[in-house]
This record gives sequence, C-alpha cells and structure tokens, in this order.
Amino acid sequence: MASIAPLKQVFSRSTGATARRGFATTTRLDASYGFIGLGQMGYPMASNLRSKISSSDKMYIHDVNPAVTEQFAKEIGNVEIAQSVRDVAEKSETILTVLPEPHHVQNVFQQMLRPDATLAEAPNNHERLFIDCSTIDPKSSAGVANAVHSSGQGRFVDAPMSGGVVGARAGTLTFMLGASEELVERTTEVLKMMGKRTIHLGPQTSGLKGKLANNYLLALNNIATAEAMNMGVKWGLDPKTLADMINTATGKCWPSEINNPVPGVSENAPAGRDYKGGFGTRLMLKDLKLALQAGAESNIVPHLGAHAQDIYSAVVVDPACKDRDFSVVYRYIGGKE
Amino acid sequence: MASIAPLKQVFSRSTGATARRGFATTTRLDASYGFIGLGQMGYPMASNLRSKISSSDKMYIHDVNPAVTEQFAKEIGNVEIAQSVRDVAEKSETILTVLPEPHHVQNVFQQMLRPDATLAEAPNNHERLFIDCSTIDPKSSAGVANAVHSSGQGRFVDAPMSGGVVGARAGTLTFMLGASEELVERTTEVLKMMGKRTIHLGPQTSGLKGKLANNYLLALNNIATAEAMNMGVKWGLDPKTLADMINTATGKCWPSEINNPVPGVSENAPAGRDYKGGFGTRLMLKDLKLALQAGAESNIVPHLGAHAQDIYSAVVVDPACKDRDFSVVYRYIGGKE
Amino acid sequence: MASIAPLKQVFSRSTGATARRGFATTTRLDASYGFIGLGQMGYPMASNLRSKISSSDKMYIHDVNPAVTEQFAKEIGNVEIAQSVRDVAEKSETILTVLPEPHHVQNVFQQMLRPDATLAEAPNNHERLFIDCSTIDPKSSAGVANAVHSSGQGRFVDAPMSGGVVGARAGTLTFMLGASEELVERTTEVLKMMGKRTIHLGPQTSGLKGKLANNYLLALNNIATAEAMNMGVKWGLDPKTLADMINTATGKCWPSEINNPVPGVSENAPAGRDYKGGFGTRLMLKDLKLALQAGAESNIVPHLGAHAQDIYSAVVVDPACKDRDFSVVYRYIGGKE
Amino acid sequence: MASIAPLKQVFSRSTGATARRGFATTTRLDASYGFIGLGQMGYPMASNLRSKISSSDKMYIHDVNPAVTEQFAKEIGNVEIAQSVRDVAEKSETILTVLPEPHHVQNVFQQMLRPDATLAEAPNNHERLFIDCSTIDPKSSAGVANAVHSSGQGRFVDAPMSGGVVGARAGTLTFMLGASEELVERTTEVLKMMGKRTIHLGPQTSGLKGKLANNYLLALNNIATAEAMNMGVKWGLDPKTLADMINTATGKCWPSEINNPVPGVSENAPAGRDYKGGFGTRLMLKDLKLALQAGAESNIVPHLGAHAQDIYSAVVVDPACKDRDFSVVYRYIGGKE
Repeated sequence: MASIAPLKQVFSRSTGATARRGFATTTRLDASYGFIGLGQMGYPMASNLRSKISSSDKMYIHDVNPAVTEQFAKEIGNVEIAQSVRDVAEKSETILTVLPEPHHVQNVFQQMLRPDATLAEAPNNHERLFIDCSTIDPKSSAGVANAVHSSGQGRFVDAPMSGGVVGARAGTLTFMLGASEELVERTTEVLKMMGKRTIHLGPQTSGLKGKLANNYLLALNNIATAEAMNMGVKWGLDPKTLADMINTATGKCWPSEINNPVPGVSENAPAGRDYKGGFGTRLMLKDLKLALQAGAESNIVPHLGAHAQDIYSAVVVDPACKDRDFSVVYRYIGGKE
Repeated sequence: MASIAPLKQVFSRSTGATARRGFATTTRLDASYGFIGLGQMGYPMASNLRSKISSSDKMYIHDVNPAVTEQFAKEIGNVEIAQSVRDVAEKSETILTVLPEPHHVQNVFQQMLRPDATLAEAPNNHERLFIDCSTIDPKSSAGVANAVHSSGQGRFVDAPMSGGVVGARAGTLTFMLGASEELVERTTEVLKMMGKRTIHLGPQTSGLKGKLANNYLLALNNIATAEAMNMGVKWGLDPKTLADMINTATGKCWPSEINNPVPGVSENAPAGRDYKGGFGTRLMLKDLKLALQAGAESNIVPHLGAHAQDIYSAVVVDPACKDRDFSVVYRYIGGKE
Repeated sequence: MASIAPLKQVFSRSTGATARRGFATTTRLDASYGFIGLGQMGYPMASNLRSKISSSDKMYIHDVNPAVTEQFAKEIGNVEIAQSVRDVAEKSETILTVLPEPHHVQNVFQQMLRPDATLAEAPNNHERLFIDCSTIDPKSSAGVANAVHSSGQGRFVDAPMSGGVVGARAGTLTFMLGASEELVERTTEVLKMMGKRTIHLGPQTSGLKGKLANNYLLALNNIATAEAMNMGVKWGLDPKTLADMINTATGKCWPSEINNPVPGVSENAPAGRDYKGGFGTRLMLKDLKLALQAGAESNIVPHLGAHAQDIYSAVVVDPACKDRDFSVVYRYIGGKE
Repeated sequence: MASIAPLKQVFSRSTGATARRGFATTTRLDASYGFIGLGQMGYPMASNLRSKISSSDKMYIHDVNPAVTEQFAKEIGNVEIAQSVRDVAEKSETILTVLPEPHHVQNVFQQMLRPDATLAEAPNNHERLFIDCSTIDPKSSAGVANAVHSSGQGRFVDAPMSGGVVGARAGTLTFMLGASEELVERTTEVLKMMGKRTIHLGPQTSGLKGKLANNYLLALNNIATAEAMNMGVKWGLDPKTLADMINTATGKCWPSEINNPVPGVSENAPAGRDYKGGFGTRLMLKDLKLALQAGAESNIVPHLGAHAQDIYSAVVVDPACKDRDFSVVYRYIGGKE
C-alpha cells in the first residue's frame, strides 16, 4: 500500500503535544475539551480522548440523551456533564462534535454561538477550536464554518472519519481533515488521540469532500464486486478461487479483497455472519446521497451513481437485507450464498 | 498483494519441463509447437516461446497475413511457415491459438480437425494439446472443445490472458486457465514460457469465465473511479491528494491506484500521455459485452453493467476518446485535465 | 386512437356464439365450463362468465381456498364446486385458469392431465380447450402447452389480460391471445364474455410476449413521466398546465395523460387518493422481471430496464409507497405532492 | 387528444391582430419586425411571418451568414437586410431570435442593448418586444431577460418551439411560451403567424422549462419503445401487430404510435427511410443534456436520464446511427430491421 506521507498526511510526531507537555509539566496549563454527541461513534471516541489527555485536563460532555452522559461519567469518569452545549462551549478550548445530520450540527452551533452574547474568552486565552467529525454535506458545513468565523468566537474545521465503530473503539480511525494550514497541527494533535491517521485534504470542507468522493467510489465498487462475483458463481466457478484470481488482477478492490460479499471468501467479513455488523446499508445510502447532492450542486450529472442510489434504496428496505453490511447487495441481486 | 499459491496457482517449478529435459538431453525427443495468430499479442508471445524452447524443438507458425509470418521467420528465425492451419496441426504436438473473435477460432478448428480425414498421430505419439488464448465467449469455446474431444484428435483448454501488449513482450502475462486437472501441469509448462503466472480456475471454459468476471468488475471500477475523481476535482480538491487518500482507504482499486484517470496522478499511467497506449476502449467494450452476453445466457439481468455498456459504446466512437486507454472515460464525462 | 381491426383484433360479432346458440336452442347441447383460480381477478371474471352463458350451461369452479368457492356458490349460484382440478377437467369442455405464478399453473396442469389416466372424452365430444389467463413467463407457458398437446387431451392457449380488477368487474378486460389460428374464434367467443377486446398476437406464447413487451414499455414510461413531472414542478411550473402541454406534444403517453403521477392532474387517477388502488407496484415489478428474464433468455441485454427493476424494487418495500399504484414512483423520487 | 383550451392555451381568435388591423387599415400604423437567425428553422419561420404580415409592414433580417440573407431577400422579398443586429433592434418593434446555443443568444443581446448607448424609441412608440425562440437553458435565458428588463429597453419572452423543420415550413409549430401575463396576447399574435398553437406555461423561462420537461420524457419514452419493440420482435412477434396492440393499451406513447422505431410500422416515420429526416439524435441529446443540467441546478438527481444521456451519446457518434432521427436508437440496441 502506497505511503502518502510525503504529501500531506500528518502522523503523530515525537515532538507532538504530549511530548511537549511532558517536558513542561510544572508550568503547563491544563487543557479543556468539550465533546458533544455520545452516540455509537462519539462515545468510544470520547472515551479514547479522555484516556489519552492528561488526567488534570478538563473534559465536558453533552448529549441529547442524559442517560448516556450519566453512563459515560460512571463508566469512564473524570468528566463534567455540561448542562447545555452552550455550557460546553463556555468552558472548553477545543470542542468536538459528532452528530448525525446537518440540522443537528446547525442547531448545536446556533446554541453555542449567540450573536447577542458572545462566549467569554476560552480558558488559557486559547482561541477556540471547533472540530466537527460529523459526515454532513459540504455546503452546510461551510455555512457553519462561516458563522463561527464571522462571529470571531473561534475556528472551525471538518474532520469526518472512516473506520466504523470498530475503529472508534480501537482508536484506529482515519480522519479526513478540511482546515486552514495553520490549524492542521493543532487539530491533528487532538485527532491522533482517537485515530491512527489524519489526512489533510485542503481548506475547510475538503475533509467532507474527500470522504464523499471516496464513499461514492466505494458504493459503486461494492455493487460491481457483487455483480462480478455473482456472475462467476452462477457460471460455476468456485468463489474463493475467483476472488483470489481477481485480487492478483485488475479487478482488485477493497470489496473484492477485504469485504468480499460471498460468504466465506474474505476472512471475518460480514458476509460470513449473515452480513451482520460492518458498514450499514443506511450509512452507505446516506453518504451516496450526500455525494450525489453535492455533485448536483456543482452541476455534475452522475452516471452509475444514479443507478446505485436506487439499488441501495431497495436494499435498505428489503427485509432480507436491511440493517446489514452493505456487501449484502450480493444477496439483493440474487447471489448464491 | 495476497499470494494465492496455496489454492490453485501453478508457478514454474524446478522440476518443471525445462529442467527435466535439460537432464535428459541425450535421449530427449524434440518437441513440436504450432502457433496460429501472430497479431499484436500473438507475435511477441510466439517470439518468447521460440526463445525459451530448446533450439532443436520445432515450431510451425501461421497467420492470415503471410507478410507477418515472413517477418517473424526473418526477425526471430528457427521456425517453419506452415502452408495452412491444417499443416500446423499435422506437424505439432502443442498448438496455440491467439485469435480475435469466436468465428476465427471456430474456423481455424474446422480446418484443423476434419471429420473425414483425421490428423495423423502427433510427433512422439504425444496426445495433441490445443491451447486457445483467445478471449471469446465461454459457449463458443465449449463448442470448439466439444468438437475437439469428440473427434478424439486431441485435448482443448482455454487460457485467456491479461497483461496487454507490454506483458506479452516482457513475457509477464497472467493466464487464466480452464482445463481438466490432468492437463494443468502440461499446459502450465507451455504457458510459463510466455508469462509469469498461470491460474487454474476449473474445468474448460473456467479461464474465460474468470477473465470475463474480472473484466466486468474492472469496467465498472474504472467508470466509478473516473466519476469519483471528477467529483473531487470539480469540488476543488487536488487530484493527487485525493487519490492518495482514496488509496489508503476503502475506495482503493486498480484504476484509482495504478491507472488513475486524472493526468499526473499515477506515474506512467496512460492519462499522463493523452491516454495513449494501455488497455484500449474497444477491448474493454468487447470484454464487457462478452460478460453481459454470457450473463444473459445464465439468466442474469445486469444492474450497473447495462449502463456501463452504453458508456463505453459512446467512448469508443467519441473522437476525443477513441483508440485510447479505457481510463479516458474521465475525459468523456467532462473531467478536468 | 387507431383502430387495429383490419389486422387481427377479434371483436364480438352478431354471428357469435351466443347468437348462434340462441338460434338453435331446441337442439343445442349444453356447454360446460371449468374455472380454476377465484382470486381478485378470477372471481369477477368467473362471475361475468356465469352471467353470460346460458343458464342451462354447466360451470365447475375450484380454488385452493374452499371458503372462496363456497362464497361464489352462494353469491353467484348455478355452479358446481369441484372436488379437485382433475374433477373440473373431467367435466368441462372449456377450462379457464387464472393463477398467480408459473408453478401454480404447472401444478394445476399436472393434476389435470395424468399420463397414466387420461381424461374421459369431454362432454359433447368436444375437444377440450384450456385458456390460461395467468401472466407467467412464455417459457413455462410453452412447457405446459407442450404437455397438453403431446398428451392429446386438449388444446392450450395463453390469454393474459389487462384492465385490472376494475376491468375484471366491469367485464371490459382486454385479452392478448397466443393461439393457433384455428382456435382463435372459439377462444374469442369465451373471452368476450369477460372482456371487451381480444387481440390475437400469434401462436401460443404470443399473448404473453405481447403483454410483457407492453408492460416493459409501461414500466419505463411511468418512471419517465414521474421524472419529467418532478422536474417541471421543482422548476416552478404548474403541474396541470405542464401535463396539458405534454399531452398535446411528443411527451404524451398513458402515464402522462390517464394516470398522471402528480395528485390532481388526471381526473380519478390513483395519485389523487394517496395512490390507493390502480396497478400495484408489486404487479408492475413482477411483470418487469418476467420481461427482463424472457429478454435474457433471448440474449437481450437490457438498457433502461435494468435500472427500472431497481427502482421498482425500492418502491415495493418503501413504507410510503408499497401496496399502492405504480405511479407512486413520483413520491419515491421525492416529487412534490 | 384532450383539449387544453380552458387552461392557458391561446388559439388565434377572430378578434386577433389581423382582424383588428383589417378593421382599422386606414389609420393603422405599419408594424416593424426584426428576425435574427435564418437557419434551418429560422428561415421558413421568417418566410411565413413575412407572408402573413401586412405587405406594408417592415421586416429587417440578419444572419451571421450574409449569403443566407441575400437568398432570403431574393426568394421571399420585401425585407431589408440589416447591417448588424443592433441595426435590427433600432428599427424594429418586435424582434425574434432563433439561435442554436446560449452564447449566441447572449452575444446577440449584448450587441443589441449597449448600456452606454440605449436604443432610440421604437417605431410607433411601441415598447420593444424580444421573442426568443431558441432552445437554451432557463438560467441563461433568465440572465438575458434580466439584462433586457433592467436596461429598460424592452420586454423579453422565451418561446421555444416543437414541430421541427416540417412544422416550421408548414407554419404548424407549437410554441411554449414563458412570459408575463400582459405580454401573452401580443406575443401570441406574432407567433400564430408561424405556428398553429401557443401554450403559455407561466412567467419568463417557463416555456423553456416546459420544453425541457417534455423532451426529457420523450428521450426516455423513445428508448423504452425501442427496447420493448426489440424484445417483441426478437421473441418472434410481428412488429406491426405488436405496435397495434400497444397503441390500444397502456404502452401507447408518441414513439410507439407516431414514430415507431421499427421500419414499416408507423406510416411515413423516419424508420422506413433509413431513419433519415425527423428529429436528429444530436438535437435530442442537446435537449436531454439541457434538462439534466437544469435538473442538477435544482438539486434533482436523475434516475433513468443519466443512463439515457450515455445511450444518446453513443448513438450520435455511431456511424450507422449518427445524423438520423432519434428513433434510430432501435438500430443502436441491435433491433432487427
């Protein structure tokens, strides 16, 4: 796998935050983090963050569901449950948001940044940094970024992630970062506590754009793999032999190699366990739709993507396929299991 | 890249033909090879074969164009130009065919194997082995195999290849073999003189089926990559940064990594030289159509493939795209170069 | 609307069966009819048949659900409930079948026509006529026809219908007939008691082929209309004004004129009542799949049909769309209601 | 065919312009017309206009090709060849433009309406009326309309037409009008001299929007018809019998009835003369692309249209299909002729 380090990838460095702070413990000021959105992804991410920051650093958490913050405080500890997202913003230098839809992100930022009552200076006189890890459309994200920047109350970057719940728990997520150059290092130092890699793709919204382009490609390659495997199997080929050949040849792709849709071909792939777990069809469809909408806004008429949207739309509601890994497309098209 | 050796791949072995023959030079009987079809692929393949077999082995060549066999005899030497394909068959134990279309293969075999005048016993009393490296539809191939086997005049295997003209010249082709188990070793010893790998996919027709499944997948992944890169670039992302990210992520595939359609992204890819060279759009369309037809014969209704066929049909006749590498789809959809 | 009478359409004639029989009442032998399958379509068809034949004619009915035959006997009367489909066949000259799937048709005919125990001669020494009004694939239908004809126990024709439950009740169905020339008149005399028009499309299976070709076209035109109306409405046009224009122009088609998918445009169309009633999405998908499969069997690779199949597959399981008229595609694609 | 008169269609009336003018000949002021763009459509339209207006009315013509205006002056007579489009605008009350692409329309209007040198008052102190009959995208059209209106030098309406060269010659075009209510009557009086029907679809741009929606539908219905007819014919049905059945059934549409793609089915249809004449594939593709782009600007992700674009893109460059009526799609998909 080609390393892309020479370009823009920002790995953790020995001169990074932890090291520097370690050197300066006597004079170091405690940092303060806010975390909004403790869902399936946010909860384990916040947990990893809490375990990596200094124990004297402060962390403020909030979720629409109070039971979740209670549970987090009990299970993980050393956090303060904020009464509101405004409260989180008041007390934190660095605020992370992990939310499902554009309107959630918009609402949270409207509550945090009131035009009539600007936030007090952040602890340590540090400029506030808002890191939004939600996967939303670039246009909505740009709108929120603009509101933050024009209010003068902080800086905003987009950092959607890939790696799923498994990666969130293991702290091995990849973040796709859209941020001004001067914010890349500071953001990366935070994100590396929850993931293994941060890739800076350009100015704000670039993280989201990169994620949508990648997932558009994934959505299509996944269907293509299901169709090609289905053909081979229907023609009488052994699926493992076929996949092995493809994976030394030009058909090789992530769905053929790592997540093969035919049960038993890729070790540990969801196909082997009735397509349970993995990357859910609803999330795939959500990302595909976001890509298509962002494409339409740029006057891009899709080709295969228009068809793929209809395939996933059928899959997400098919009783035999719904709530399963997106490789279940193989079942949808009548593949032999 | 995952090795698939434990399964069915048949690498050259030190106990292979050359070694054995070397050991037994004094008593060894000279082998005889026939080669029919000296086109863009066949010519360099035959050349490699001639250079790898023993100089005392015989080789008989034939092509519809006599100028080509003349040239081969002059450039490569140590061959005999056969007057007809029947003549090739009479004199050879092992006959290779590399032809463009099903009807060419059918015609050549009708001329070689007459029901009224069976071939004399092959040199060395060896059972004749017919290795067809053409990419044709499995049904036609099965028909020819059936004719060969029922005539009792030899054995027939299909061994389409991938690797293109570059691989044919360098002797680094990959062969996808459809053959009875007992023919695999003998066939592989021949093919390894023209390629680096032979993958046995099952009984006769399996080689073709594997190739068509792989190329169906490739045809779709290529369009998907062109579309995803186009989106990213139109949205303002740097194409190399985007591709580097994708290639560490789930969108990674052969077209994104090795043959990226955006000029300057993949080193040495055709995109960087006005899409010249590479895997021609006509060949891609031909293989895709073969896959779709073979699918229809198995009652498989395609999904994305139906659309892809129309995209490549437009590309092959578009003046700005025709006669170029199939990654030129990026240009067809309006990608920024 | 162009009349097609000069070609092959067979309207009822004043010299038709009823009239002729009326003329010959004193010597006329009573006719006997069997009716198998009293579902949503079959029940009203059988009811119309019973009301049109002479009161002294016999009618034998059967359904897998005994409650339905009981109800029919009570509501409509003058019928005999047969104990088995074999019993129906024994007692009837003319047997109609209206069944949902190929396997139902196959099962019923296997029970009726045993190789070991052929049917007794039909009443009046009339050759038995089997009229299958089910919509199944032409291949299965040909198989059943072949079994009937080779058994020598009767003649078989296919006569799928259009017009829906409304047409079945009103007796205004259109039948698409696939039958040998010599059976056309006899079949038409029966069918006209349940519909207003019988179109003879050619030999056996032609009725089904015609219906599938028509419904393939309908499936696509319906989506196309939904998309075009959606565009116009999203662009701010008044839907009725737009539809009126289209219906005087080249976009005019059955879905734009009679069954417009935008509520309030076509009078009495299902769109105006939450898409209730009409031609169900499941039936549309069933017919489309039959057409695509029959196409694949003839090596036809579909173009738009492959995509349409995925659209209807999504629609039939979408909670907001399922179990509604197929014009609900407009809702599925996000049309403004 | 449903009349839409009660809605918005504006037929010629006995109280229309000609009648009124006839009544008032003694005091009537001569009218002045400008006509820009004498191409395949514009030339016969201008000719019809010249023959319908009063012989004392003035007409000023212009085309990029001076030979064409010379020819018009010779053939039709009673016109003045304007030196420039500015000259046309100076001298005319009513200016018609019939141009191929948005940039042509934009250029012509930039030359006519200079911000630094507004046009003198029009003859008869009449407010200038610009009627653009070009088929361009609604956005560009709105831009031009805005420039006209904000300059205060006249009023602008869009009136794309359907009916082709045949309709232009016969004066039987249908115009789809996008105009403010108060301009509808005046515009209609002009257009009726070149066509048989004007349909007012709403404010400026609505004519174009209506045309694009209609032609989007037509583009799809045409492919659908070609596919359905191909199926039926491949299955052995007689094409005329099949089409006759479809045209009494739910598959009926303009391409099945008036312009059937199978040679010999629709009388006088282009299919019967090697698809020559009719509505050219390039124009169909142009309109489809305009519809898709205008759709994308409204965030509409297409379904079947994305695929159709690729089909027509293949057709327009296929040597056997190019420069023919768009029903030649039937040939492209391999239909039996």
